[in-house]
Parts: sequence; structure tokens; C-alpha cells
Amino acid sequence: MRLKFTKMHGLGNDFMVIDGVTQNVELSATEIEQWSDRHFGIGFDQLLLVEPPTRPDRDFRYRIFNADGSEVENCGNGARCFARFVTDQRLTEQTSIRVETAGGDLELHIQDDGQVTVDMGRPRLAPAKIPFNAPDRLDLYDLQVNQQTLQISAVNMGNPHCVIRVEDVLRADVEQLGPQIESHLAFPQRVNVGFLEVVNRSQVRLRVFERGVGETLACGTGACAAVVAGIINGWLDHEVSVTLPGGVLAIQWSGEGNVMMTGPASRVFEGVLS
Amino acid sequence: MRLKFTKMHGLGNDFMVIDGVTQNVELSATEIEQWSDRHFGIGFDQLLLVEPPTRPDRDFRYRIFNADGSEVENCGNGARCFARFVTDQRLTEQTSIRVETAGGDLELHIQDDGQVTVDMGRPRLAPAKIPFNAPDRLDLYDLQVNQQTLQISAVNMGNPHCVIRVEDVLRADVEQLGPQIESHLAFPQRVNVGFLEVVNRSQVRLRVFERGVGETLACGTGACAAVVAGIINGWLDHEVSVTLPGGVLAIQWSGEGNVMMTGPASRVFEGVLS
Repeated sequence: MRLKFTKMHGLGNDFMVIDGVTQNVELSATEIEQWSDRHFGIGFDQLLLVEPPTRPDRDFRYRIFNADGSEVENCGNGARCFARFVTDQRLTEQTSIRVETAGGDLELHIQDDGQVTVDMGRPRLAPAKIPFNAPDRLDLYDLQVNQQTLQISAVNMGNPHCVIRVEDVLRADVEQLGPQIESHLAFPQRVNVGFLEVVNRSQVRLRVFERGVGETLACGTGACAAVVAGIINGWLDHEVSVTLPGGVLAIQWSGEGNVMMTGPASRVFEGVLS
Repeated sequence: MRLKFTKMHGLGNDFMVIDGVTQNVELSATEIEQWSDRHFGIGFDQLLLVEPPTRPDRDFRYRIFNADGSEVENCGNGARCFARFVTDQRLTEQTSIRVETAGGDLELHIQDDGQVTVDMGRPRLAPAKIPFNAPDRLDLYDLQVNQQTLQISAVNMGNPHCVIRVEDVLRADVEQLGPQIESHLAFPQRVNVGFLEVVNRSQVRLRVFERGVGETLACGTGACAAVVAGIINGWLDHEVSVTLPGGVLAIQWSGEGNVMMTGPASRVFEGVLS
């Protein structure tokens, strides 16, 4: 079997992308695990398999697999790579692409500059929806961590986020606080932890400690959650540029409704496995 | 420019291999550094560039570059990948390949099973040749490290090696002892440190802490140095199978002359950079 693939990344979150529309592809968890190895295989964070839709109102379906072969729900960086991939491969001529994923339907928009806008859905702020143990919904909660009281916001963007505003994101104690808050008893399903530095009302810097993973280069849902937290607290306007270690995302939120995320997706090389 | 390349590895030491015989290739350090990145680029330990020979008595020349773009002298894993590459690409029909490298000339032999034998040259055992601060050449030296006295052998295989026999390689304190011995004052050019478990007279297990790098999956010169140390101390026969974290190398040494190393080289995929 000769399997063609494309290596892409969205802000350093990297993907092996396989065209399952024009190729007949059957994947096993063992293969995915071998391919994911960065020394013995191709190396990637996730594998993205593009398939024909199963419903007539959708243009494509895609599936995302972790390096261990398990299927994951969704990923903003993967969505942008998917949209660039089907456009570059000329699998579609459309600039708005309707896609089904394991995490639900998405609509993706290719911008003139090649960046991709992803509708990231509505933020959930009620404590029970995070989930977060608190009697009432607040913009800022007090959270006891070790001997100190931290002020945090809690936002669910399909997954739970705790956002902490810091003076200087480079000096934030992500290594210590990240795992302590991730497994804090107040978050029964654990939590992603964002450290947010507000530069001005339209620019922030962000580092995210991802649940079960550690600090990552660019967490799309984390960028959305941080901007939502900044807007409900009155620190930010409705269009915000978020600088993450892997690059920049533009986040838009009117204060209600869905959050829109715009960012790049880069093609690195074309590959053939033999 | 469309640049074709092949991703290969020798026991997990991985290479981007470029055919500079049939392609016109000019490389910059900046490009190499970008390509070496495992999230934003292709990802590799080293880049291997195959070129036509500059002398009539050689079949090829190859050059090896580190991820930062600096050129390195030689590498047993790279030599095996080179030999498999020129064979698989049909750049040669020969099973013995004469090649020039920055570290000197090499002769490589493709075995029937696809493994590659590399002549790794003569070991140097005189203290001044290691270099190692000792009045006389011994098979075992006492080395003071912290409060303890370790028995070590010292072997130069083009680079300096310190070999320590241990009971159980998995329990060897590579993390602590590796850096302490690497920068021990008795080794003025620092040293690679091998932890050798003798299973029987023809089988060993080995972990190597590489100078300036840390523990690696498979150090070819380290495997040679360990077997030479085992032979001069009377622990091993002349053909020894060395199990490293990345896989198995077969080392042959008669007790004088050159050390021969045989091992695999694996092709992972073909790529095109655009």
C-alpha cells in the first residue's frame, strides 16, 4: 500500500492529514501509534482523516485521532488544517465548508489571506456546566490553591477552562500552578488552566496548561476561554489578538452567542508511506 | 523549488536524507534549523546530504548536519542510512560502497538481509589518545566520582568513551552519573559514558550518555567502545550483540585492528517540500 499524506500544523500543533476521499484508507490504532513516533515514524500530535460526509447537508466529515490511536472530539487547530487541506487539495471550491465531526457539526470559513475562521460555539459560564463547584455564577471566583487565594474565571468551551489573569505571562508559574489547579477538587472533571496577560483591550498574551497534557504551544479553546473571561470581566473589547507560544489567534465574541476564532494553518510537506 | 527527501532512521536516530546527486541542492543553516523542528518542520536529529564524490576512488560523498545547521564529522547510524538510501534509490548497484565524509573515508557493506556493516576504525586505548589523565594504560582504571570509586575503561572510537560495567542496565544511575562523568576533570575533552551490562560472552545491554546531548537511543561508537572494553577485560568474545534502547547492533573486533559494526537502517517515508 502506498499511502499519501500531508504534514501540517496550526501554530505548532501538528497533524498528519490523510485524504480519505480519494484514497481508500483503513487505520488501526497500532499503525497510528507507530506513525506518531517522532523518531521511528512520521511524528505528530494528532492524525486527521478527511472523509466524505455521511449526510447530504455536509460537505465533509473528519476524524481526529490522538497519538495512541484513540479518537478525540475536536480541536480548533485541526479544524483550520482540515479547511486548508481540502482547499489546497481542491477537494472543494467553496470558501465556507460545512463539516461533521465527532464533536458535532462545524462551519469553517477560508479568508482571503488563507487564514481560517472556526465557529467555536457558545461559551458556558454556569458553574454546573463547567463543571465547577460553586453556589452561584460569578465573573471572578476565589480559588484556594496551597496557601494562597487566586482569582479565577471559569469557562466551558466544549471543555472546562480556568483562566487566571497575571501581570507577566513569561513569569507565570505555569509549571507549579498548572498541575495543582488542573486536579483541584473544585473541578470534578479536572480543568485546562490559562494564564492571561492583558496587554491592552485588544491584545493579550496567553499560556495554557492543558488537562492531561501539560503546557502546549497553542490551545484554541483556551484562547477562546481566556478572551471570554476577559470580556465578562470588562478587561477586553470584542475583537482580541491572542499571542500564544506557537503564534497568534484572533478571537471575536460579541458578549453573547458563538465565539469565532481565526488563525493560520500551514502545510509543511507531502509524504508517501510505503 | 520542490525538494524531494527521504525520512530514515537507524535504531531511532533519525535523518532527513537528501539526494544531492540527481537534485541541485543548496542548503542554508536557517532552512536546516526550520526543517529540523519536530512541530513546525519535518523533524530529525540530523540532515544527511548525499553528493557525488570529489575523488575518482570514491563512489559518493556525504555530509551530516546537526539540527542547528552545523556540520558534524560522522555518525554510525547515519552511515548505515546513507548506504541503504543509495541502494534503495538505485544510485549504485554495488554492495560495497566507498564514501568520503568530513570524518574521513569509509567503506560500507550491504548485507543480504539489508543490514549495513560499517568499518568503525581502530580503537585507541592509550590515555593520551582518549584523552584521559592517567600515567599508564590499564584495562580498568579507578575513577573517583563524588564519594565513590568507579572502575572504568577508557576507549577512543573517533570520540572519547568511558565504559562502566553494571549489574543491571535498567537500574544504572545514568541520569546522575552520566553528566558527572561526562565533565569529570580526568577527561579534558569531556567524555561519552556507557553503562554496560554483560548478559553472556556474546550479548550485552548498553545505555549511553552522549557528550553534550544526554542519553540517546543508539550510539554506534558507544556500542563499539563498550565491546572493546569488554574484550580487553576478558568478559566478551569477538562477536557481540549489543542491545541499546533503540534496537540491536552487532559488533565484531578481533582484539586488534578495526571494529566492524552491523545494524539496520529503516526508510519511513518519501517527502516533498514545496
